[in-house]
Amino acid sequence: MPVAKRIAVDAMGGDRGPAEVARGVYEAALHSTSHFYLVGHPDVLQQELKKWHNRPKNIEIVPASEVIEMTDQPAVAFRKKPDASVVIAARMVHEGQADALVTIGNTGAAMAVGLLTLGRIKGIDRPAIATPLPSLTGGTVILLDAGATVDCDPNNLYEFALMGSAYAEHVLGVTKPRVALLSNGEEMNKGNTLVKRTHQLLLSASQMEAPFEFVGNVEGRDLFKGQADVVICDGFTGNVLLKTAEGVAEMVLSLIKQELGRHIWMRPLLAPFLPAMRRLRTRIDYAERGGAPLLGVNGICIIGHGRSTYYAVANACRAAEKAVEHNIVEVIRSRVCKAPLMPPAT
Amino acid sequence: MPVAKRIAVDAMGGDRGPAEVARGVYEAALHSTSHFYLVGHPDVLQQELKKWHNRPKNIEIVPASEVIEMTDQPAVAFRKKPDASVVIAARMVHEGQADALVTIGNTGAAMAVGLLTLGRIKGIDRPAIATPLPSLTGGTVILLDAGATVDCDPNNLYEFALMGSAYAEHVLGVTKPRVALLSNGEEMNKGNTLVKRTHQLLLSASQMEAPFEFVGNVEGRDLFKGQADVVICDGFTGNVLLKTAEGVAEMVLSLIKQELGRHIWMRPLLAPFLPAMRRLRTRIDYAERGGAPLLGVNGICIIGHGRSTYYAVANACRAAEKAVEHNIVEVIRSRVCKAPLMPPAT
Repeated sequence: MPVAKRIAVDAMGGDRGPAEVARGVYEAALHSTSHFYLVGHPDVLQQELKKWHNRPKNIEIVPASEVIEMTDQPAVAFRKKPDASVVIAARMVHEGQADALVTIGNTGAAMAVGLLTLGRIKGIDRPAIATPLPSLTGGTVILLDAGATVDCDPNNLYEFALMGSAYAEHVLGVTKPRVALLSNGEEMNKGNTLVKRTHQLLLSASQMEAPFEFVGNVEGRDLFKGQADVVICDGFTGNVLLKTAEGVAEMVLSLIKQELGRHIWMRPLLAPFLPAMRRLRTRIDYAERGGAPLLGVNGICIIGHGRSTYYAVANACRAAEKAVEHNIVEVIRSRVCKAPLMPPAT
Repeated sequence: MPVAKRIAVDAMGGDRGPAEVARGVYEAALHSTSHFYLVGHPDVLQQELKKWHNRPKNIEIVPASEVIEMTDQPAVAFRKKPDASVVIAARMVHEGQADALVTIGNTGAAMAVGLLTLGRIKGIDRPAIATPLPSLTGGTVILLDAGATVDCDPNNLYEFALMGSAYAEHVLGVTKPRVALLSNGEEMNKGNTLVKRTHQLLLSASQMEAPFEFVGNVEGRDLFKGQADVVICDGFTGNVLLKTAEGVAEMVLSLIKQELGRHIWMRPLLAPFLPAMRRLRTRIDYAERGGAPLLGVNGICIIGHGRSTYYAVANACRAAEKAVEHNIVEVIRSRVCKAPLMPPAT
């Protein structure tokens, strides 16, 4: 029998409060053999757990007296709140009491705590958040970095390519993942200085038996067409891109509502389309794909969207279980060891 | 009686070929007192003009023997093809034979040609493409730079703020435009090094009676919510953002089609919604808002999307007329003269 995975969940983060997180963990625990630690204010969490008639035995409360708020400065919060729920959860992973950390709190804080508590994998200079995105072909595209490292050099991006392809191969089951570089044009002479230099570096790497296939530049427009399995960019651009995609999808859906709601007589006609609209929402909803792993840190750390519903929290827990199952930290460590060492790009 | 505006249109650019451009100019000319120069291969254009029964008198063909292709290297093409349609059209503006240039060809080439032929406005270091975007409140948000200057320093972005606000105020009629800085978070400590330094610079500028109101950082998600009239960013990020927005809007619309087309019995039910879907497309369609001005060059240059339909070309011609009417080059020149001179950001 396999050993039960142990998932430490920061129960105090997220825009919807601890009740939502607790419910998500409850849903995940019902269908799982993993053991879940719900880290946060014991009184608050005890009250949530009391609401359930059949409390699963694989949920345990771990007390934490402090909370890092969404408005807290990440690095300051880490120093000043050693008993914050996310810090305790990270410490459990570092000390081997848990196999993975899940948080939907302050992303900056999650990153700082993950990095400072768990440390980096040897050979990785900067971590990256690897966000799964839907593609029109029905598959998943991994975009990294989604905001962990806002100022990058070409070697950082090369490391992102190594980590992202390791994740796509081992967790998502893609053989020889295709890695693309996000740019403002497909041609290799397109891009800002960072992208042009990175393009050269990735070209050299792929001639030196890199464990991925470099397929060149990709534009934002083609990101969702499934031409690549992994798309790399600096964390600033990646974060702007993701939030723009979210904003546009929301805008289009809200314009559809406005347009279709224009005439009252139309409303009853809409009924047959509601399941289709729900499926649509599901297909573009970040919650479906759960949290994004913070790759490059020496431990498994899954970061969810601050607006996560219980459903998204449950999916983030599943992402954590998968990362543990496929031992993603070891996979990255061995990939970095074996990958061609690139000279600093010029 | 006002003097007729003279618009030189590069007829050979665009993915759909000269016929589409010619038709767009025809549509624009029908309802306008401006004089349009259609610059390109005379045989090809003559043939297009012959198709019209009532050829407007305010369209004139200007021969150009060469074409800059979409795949040409901008700077190389400019040197090697002095008789390219876009070069001749730009030269007409430079030499005072035309008041504005419109092109939907190779954007990089349009920029290079605009910059090298027309030169820069004194006090402006780098040009920017100012792209109008729809906002959910029904207004327009100007995003710049959309791809002219991919590597920026804070002073470039400050100049973009000056130019974008001049455009919003004089051409779009917004009093004291609200300028926001695109970032990965609203808080002033968010952003990459460029954005953090620019934030400081814009704060100082707004304390020194800058001709715009700096409203802080804005995220990609909120771009379409109408919280700012002008949003500034480097050309790499801006271009990635625009193409992503386009890709997501297309993806959502195509998923809707997929979902609604799932059951054949649903199709007849869809008929009443078709006008609403068309209105929706109109509201998110770039073509509605026509071309984007290349601001900072010493002459009016409107750059349209390569995929422009005749309808988009006609709108780009109207954007050119408006820019001439409001004398946008002089407006920017005088704004730059009067604006507080900022020390290089540190």
